[in-house]
Amino acid sequence: MHEGHSWPTGSASPLSDDEARLVDAWWRAANYLSVGQIYLLDNPLLRKPLTREDVKPRLLGHWGTTPGLTFLYAHFNRAIKQRGLNALYITGPGHGGPGLVASTYLEGTYTETYPNITKTEEGLQRLFKQFSFPGGIPSHVAPETPGSIHEGGELGYALSHAYGAMFDNADQIAFTVIGDGEAETGPLATSWHSNKFVNVQQDGVVLPVLHLNGYKIANPTVLARIPEEELAELMRGYGHTPLFFTGGFGDEDVIETHKRFAAVLDQALDMIAEIKALPEDAPRPAWPMIVFRTPKGWTGPKEIDGKRTEDSWRAHQVPLANARDTDEHLANLETWLKSYRPEELFDETGALRPEIAELAPTGEQRMSANPITNGGLVLRDLDLPDFRDYAVDVTTPGAVTSEATRRLGTWFRDVIAKNPENFRIFGPDETASNRLQDVYEVTGKQWDAEYLDTDSDDHLVRAGRVMEMLSEHQCEGWLEGYLLTGRHGMMSSYEAFIHIVDSMFNQHAKWLKVTNHIGWRRPIASLNYLLSSHVWRQDHNGFSHQDPGFIDHVVNKKSEVIRVYLPCDTNTLLATWDNVLRSRQLVNVVVAGKQPNPNWLSMDQAVKHVTRGIGIWEWAGTEVAGEEPDVVLGCAGDVPTIETLAAAKILRERIPGLKVRVVNVVDLMRLQDEKEHPHGLSLREFDNYFTSDKPVLFAYHGYPWLIHRLVYRHDFGSQFHVRGFKEEGTTTTPFDMLMRNDLDRYHLVMDVIDRVPSLGARYANLRQEMLDQRTEAREYAYAHGEDLPEVQQWTWAGVVGDQTDATVATGGDNE
Amino acid sequence: MHEGHSWPTGSASPLSDDEARLVDAWWRAANYLSVGQIYLLDNPLLRKPLTREDVKPRLLGHWGTTPGLTFLYAHFNRAIKQRGLNALYITGPGHGGPGLVASTYLEGTYTETYPNITKTEEGLQRLFKQFSFPGGIPSHVAPETPGSIHEGGELGYALSHAYGAMFDNADQIAFTVIGDGEAETGPLATSWHSNKFVNVQQDGVVLPVLHLNGYKIANPTVLARIPEEELAELMRGYGHTPLFFTGGFGDEDVIETHKRFAAVLDQALDMIAEIKALPEDAPRPAWPMIVFRTPKGWTGPKEIDGKRTEDSWRAHQVPLANARDTDEHLANLETWLKSYRPEELFDETGALRPEIAELAPTGEQRMSANPITNGGLVLRDLDLPDFRDYAVDVTTPGAVTSEATRRLGTWFRDVIAKNPENFRIFGPDETASNRLQDVYEVTGKQWDAEYLDTDSDDHLVRAGRVMEMLSEHQCEGWLEGYLLTGRHGMMSSYEAFIHIVDSMFNQHAKWLKVTNHIGWRRPIASLNYLLSSHVWRQDHNGFSHQDPGFIDHVVNKKSEVIRVYLPCDTNTLLATWDNVLRSRQLVNVVVAGKQPNPNWLSMDQAVKHVTRGIGIWEWAGTEVAGEEPDVVLGCAGDVPTIETLAAAKILRERIPGLKVRVVNVVDLMRLQDEKEHPHGLSLREFDNYFTSDKPVLFAYHGYPWLIHRLVYRHDFGSQFHVRGFKEEGTTTTPFDMLMRNDLDRYHLVMDVIDRVPSLGARYANLRQEMLDQRTEAREYAYAHGEDLPEVQQWTWAGVVGDQTDATVATGGDNE
Repeated sequence: MHEGHSWPTGSASPLSDDEARLVDAWWRAANYLSVGQIYLLDNPLLRKPLTREDVKPRLLGHWGTTPGLTFLYAHFNRAIKQRGLNALYITGPGHGGPGLVASTYLEGTYTETYPNITKTEEGLQRLFKQFSFPGGIPSHVAPETPGSIHEGGELGYALSHAYGAMFDNADQIAFTVIGDGEAETGPLATSWHSNKFVNVQQDGVVLPVLHLNGYKIANPTVLARIPEEELAELMRGYGHTPLFFTGGFGDEDVIETHKRFAAVLDQALDMIAEIKALPEDAPRPAWPMIVFRTPKGWTGPKEIDGKRTEDSWRAHQVPLANARDTDEHLANLETWLKSYRPEELFDETGALRPEIAELAPTGEQRMSANPITNGGLVLRDLDLPDFRDYAVDVTTPGAVTSEATRRLGTWFRDVIAKNPENFRIFGPDETASNRLQDVYEVTGKQWDAEYLDTDSDDHLVRAGRVMEMLSEHQCEGWLEGYLLTGRHGMMSSYEAFIHIVDSMFNQHAKWLKVTNHIGWRRPIASLNYLLSSHVWRQDHNGFSHQDPGFIDHVVNKKSEVIRVYLPCDTNTLLATWDNVLRSRQLVNVVVAGKQPNPNWLSMDQAVKHVTRGIGIWEWAGTEVAGEEPDVVLGCAGDVPTIETLAAAKILRERIPGLKVRVVNVVDLMRLQDEKEHPHGLSLREFDNYFTSDKPVLFAYHGYPWLIHRLVYRHDFGSQFHVRGFKEEGTTTTPFDMLMRNDLDRYHLVMDVIDRVPSLGARYANLRQEMLDQRTEAREYAYAHGEDLPEVQQWTWAGVVGDQTDATVATGGDNE
Repeated sequence: MHEGHSWPTGSASPLSDDEARLVDAWWRAANYLSVGQIYLLDNPLLRKPLTREDVKPRLLGHWGTTPGLTFLYAHFNRAIKQRGLNALYITGPGHGGPGLVASTYLEGTYTETYPNITKTEEGLQRLFKQFSFPGGIPSHVAPETPGSIHEGGELGYALSHAYGAMFDNADQIAFTVIGDGEAETGPLATSWHSNKFVNVQQDGVVLPVLHLNGYKIANPTVLARIPEEELAELMRGYGHTPLFFTGGFGDEDVIETHKRFAAVLDQALDMIAEIKALPEDAPRPAWPMIVFRTPKGWTGPKEIDGKRTEDSWRAHQVPLANARDTDEHLANLETWLKSYRPEELFDETGALRPEIAELAPTGEQRMSANPITNGGLVLRDLDLPDFRDYAVDVTTPGAVTSEATRRLGTWFRDVIAKNPENFRIFGPDETASNRLQDVYEVTGKQWDAEYLDTDSDDHLVRAGRVMEMLSEHQCEGWLEGYLLTGRHGMMSSYEAFIHIVDSMFNQHAKWLKVTNHIGWRRPIASLNYLLSSHVWRQDHNGFSHQDPGFIDHVVNKKSEVIRVYLPCDTNTLLATWDNVLRSRQLVNVVVAGKQPNPNWLSMDQAVKHVTRGIGIWEWAGTEVAGEEPDVVLGCAGDVPTIETLAAAKILRERIPGLKVRVVNVVDLMRLQDEKEHPHGLSLREFDNYFTSDKPVLFAYHGYPWLIHRLVYRHDFGSQFHVRGFKEEGTTTTPFDMLMRNDLDRYHLVMDVIDRVPSLGARYANLRQEMLDQRTEAREYAYAHGEDLPEVQQWTWAGVVGDQTDATVATGGDNE
């Protein structure tokens, strides 16, 4: 547990005129630099009359949200300096990139990070030109922007990221701007409830600022078009104390506007200081939030071509679209730029005047230089208990059964115990359902809503390492925020419903891919998924719960950041997770069942198997040393492995002399070519496993086409025949699920008979027997509601006898 | 516009004791049948002592939510009958399947639909046995359940579906139960705001009932653990008038409980009647909603094995897990079942006693028999304007440029005008951005929040056919609800962000697949997506907006319900959408750019091309009749088609004698094998297009691996080389985007030189020249911020001269 951090206290006095003018000068400077980035190729300080050639040929960017973002940045800086806060800035409207780049430039961080962008007129010209320019920087608050942990391209996750960043960061505050467009998304709408999952003493503070500028691309926003009292009720209903600020609409002197906002911000920060001083057992506080209502495109052109632009959706992107083409727009642009009075802001060299630069805090108190926003800087390795100590004792393959994720949960329990400050588990009400409940021996589910009694409030605690809310979006967003700020974690989910965060995964994978190529971004811990309650054991919930397609979705992202593991048993799962928690800059997807499952590999074998990622199981096959097999049975996934081994047993008993090789794949990316994925195999290595021309019957956990997509560079002449989930499901028995998708042992044997030319007609009787077995299994299930006893109790044990020396052989010389 | 429907008016009097007893008897019957379904194989009326053999071997189902659902069903029925309402029941907690099956059985609909499930003791035995049983029915409120349009397996969409169902159904009411677990999801949290998008006169009514039973699988729920006043503020903040009901916790006589709830429901329905009588220009009403707080597992065992079960998360699934194994649990089960006094409910034949059956309405007023819940019953064909009238005049390929989606918008305008009551367009603030703005000539965006002035309130109307909210979840959920109740529609989205609804698409595709095999379910209109602002023209927004992977996601679903179209130009897009809007029971994904794009095909050619789905463009290639080509240039997607034709032009000019075939694919599923997809090709047909052994250079819109996954049954020896988006993106120019992914014309020419054996060294100079062209293009973009003029202005026009007779040839005898 954390000790109580001291939070800066003491109310601020009202802003003086001088202070307000300083804030205003900073704001003007940031706006000037923002407009410059959107429009100017050259002439950055307007020292010459503006010409068409000074304007970029393609005008790309978003002006509308920017002045609000810079206004807030200026005021946050004033408060940070005055109160000594440790803060970061989460930009929900991430398309307001110019505003954040401008602010970090004014703080000096930008030049420290990118020395080429100097604090000179030449540096300004480069700053302007590079924005949204080929070879330059993106238009959003992308990974390239110092201080950013949130690009905001896809809307909805600002608050979740902010709360994730604040967990276990007791002395930090996340100023979090939420656009009123973003506020309409589902994920954002539920993320307000994050305040029921915060620990006041242990976690940092999120101050949400709802930026109500009224318009999206082409529409007003919902929250700007309900009565203010209704909005206040909504925010109070979410558990917040709303503070309202409206500015920029009338003819109020801007200095007064600044004073009024400073008072609101001070009020919020005073409330926060009071909350942080509450005793540990105080009831959940009503954290403040600010409703910040200002015009879209504030300080920009009031009208363009006779149409209202400021305070309109027309200010959303680039208001003066023809600045390079018409004299009128060019003149408008010059007038607009000059309205910020750049000559008051920058000296003759082009540097920000020192008296204005004074507004910002220094060093790591600058939001753009807060080390937690470059998470790798503060990342500490986990102290991992030796996973070998949690092994299931396996001397004979298949003789011992265990629940794989349950054993993993025991290991997680000790990971948590040894790392009480930088490791959390996230899940949508499924941690126990996915069998990780042993973690509750050392921690609980963090909860700051109402408590009733211990019987119902199962493992609920004020400060705990397990985060559960029935929203995959929240879990994912929290975890991403936690990782991006230099900590470790994992998320468990029902396999089918992880699709809910497909798009969030996309954005995180893109972030990782980009940061891999940004030198100053230090590696962060990987994003780790445990997908359990998977397709083959959702026979009770039915078709809606049966979907193994997340893997297909994941593998489209850049191979350098993607890993997929399908451990076949408990020891393999443990060895996999040790790898996973040590890794950096990856997305690791691990699929594993929670039901009792036979164990195949001793821990030593499992370690080798995971290290190699793929292996020939000589003990399971009937190969003859030095000869090629007649057929290869490949498998990936716990249930397909069972069926493959059951088929191998039948083949061993019923087709004497057939040379069967069994290949198990734990690291799915081994199936790709080495040119496609860092874990891929060369053609020679691949053929060492699968031969160059023998039929391969591959039993796969998910959609079968994925295997074809992975092996296409190595599979000539349709050597591979893949069985998997072909979207046939319902509420039925586990074995019936396999039969519906032709992934059952009997069908695999039929496939071998069909595919191995030498068998064919000779084994027509066996083939028919297999068909009869399927019919019998189906009829038994339909009559009795459960699977045949011999299917339920099937075991490999005894087949290979006293195989204590069985090893996981490898077919190649790979790692 | 709709005429004002008359809504039933008049307040109800308080429930009499007799009425309350009738409601209670119905409720007991529904609960009895629910418990029976979960537990019993036989002995359905307990006419013999309960034995272990009467209990199912596998106990599957969810008890916890069920009694609340049945309680509400009984009360809704009372109100429907009393007031003459047309209603349907949306079951957010869809895992409470037994409760809905029981209720529809009591109404008689179940037996009408499934005559085998008779109203006899034998019928009850079958009803019980089939539930969650192999060969029986699923455990959820699945398509098999009469009256269901919402399975509810994945949580979050109950309210969106309900509102979608109510659009243009002025005389209907959707009783919509939202579990407090579901209420934590993002999509549900924002869907409360749907009330700002309803037209009081034209649309039906949604009455949300927040079922606050307090617990999820293993946790309390957030909304059950905030003060009631905070919850009231939240609901008022969402724009509702909350009515609170709490029942089942103390020792209140259940008859009193029924009376109290009836009064709350009557109050809500009275408020609704008042709202429906408001004048058209009345401000947005605060629609009622009900907070329904009852114990989880209400009326079930209070305790099991000494642990609280009723009013606990332990009641979530099957409380008496060992009913078949221990005498104590068996006895508990019998006591529980008998507590409903079945002998009072069913007569000696096993039929519901007629005086109880009286509670339900009759005919189509039964919620389970409401025709709109079997949408195909009420579906009317659209009156479609002839798309040929909207053609771009194309006499020479490439000579005319147009914005494809803009022209489509003109056609949509007239589709809307001709179908004012059963066609709507949905989109997350992007209808105009995706260039469909012509629709605003005949309609507007439906909006019932505040209005300001006409300048800002661009095309906002109280009743309109365009639905825009910045939530892909809402748009998708509304559209699904609209389609499921027998209407037509489409949704446009930025291509990258359609991934936000990946999981919703999954569930809808599964629904369609299942209903294809349910005889009484009539075909509904297809779910149609227009994905624009696609990966190749998101150069301004950057990497976060660049993701063409939705297609990959879609194609894993059952091929019988999946179609993907990549029209190459405006006429092809128009012909595609005519197909799309006529289709039934499909998900149609259409990807098309909104930027000015050359037109290749006349309307006649386009119609043929779309009908065939794939075509050899003889005019673009340099084949010699009767000879095989040296290389095939395949393409799919508007931008890849441009690059392919540009490459073909270079090859035509620079490598005389090279026989180049150009194949364009509009219906992507044509690339699959005929055994994999109904639109797939036989191997012979496939080879007619792509040859059996010549190199195929395929320029594809999306992730290149998808093409390998589709053609794997026909591509022997790695004949196919695919270029596409390989996850390299940023803010840059359009052509630089192509170069980063090796999809540009110059790289395609290099690929041809590399792949056609006869070229090789002979064309090393041309290859180098192509490389130099890339360098020049890159350098120009980096220096000037835009693409080379010759790239921007490139055109095919003139290359083939006066090719007015150019036809889209076909290589096979397919449709």
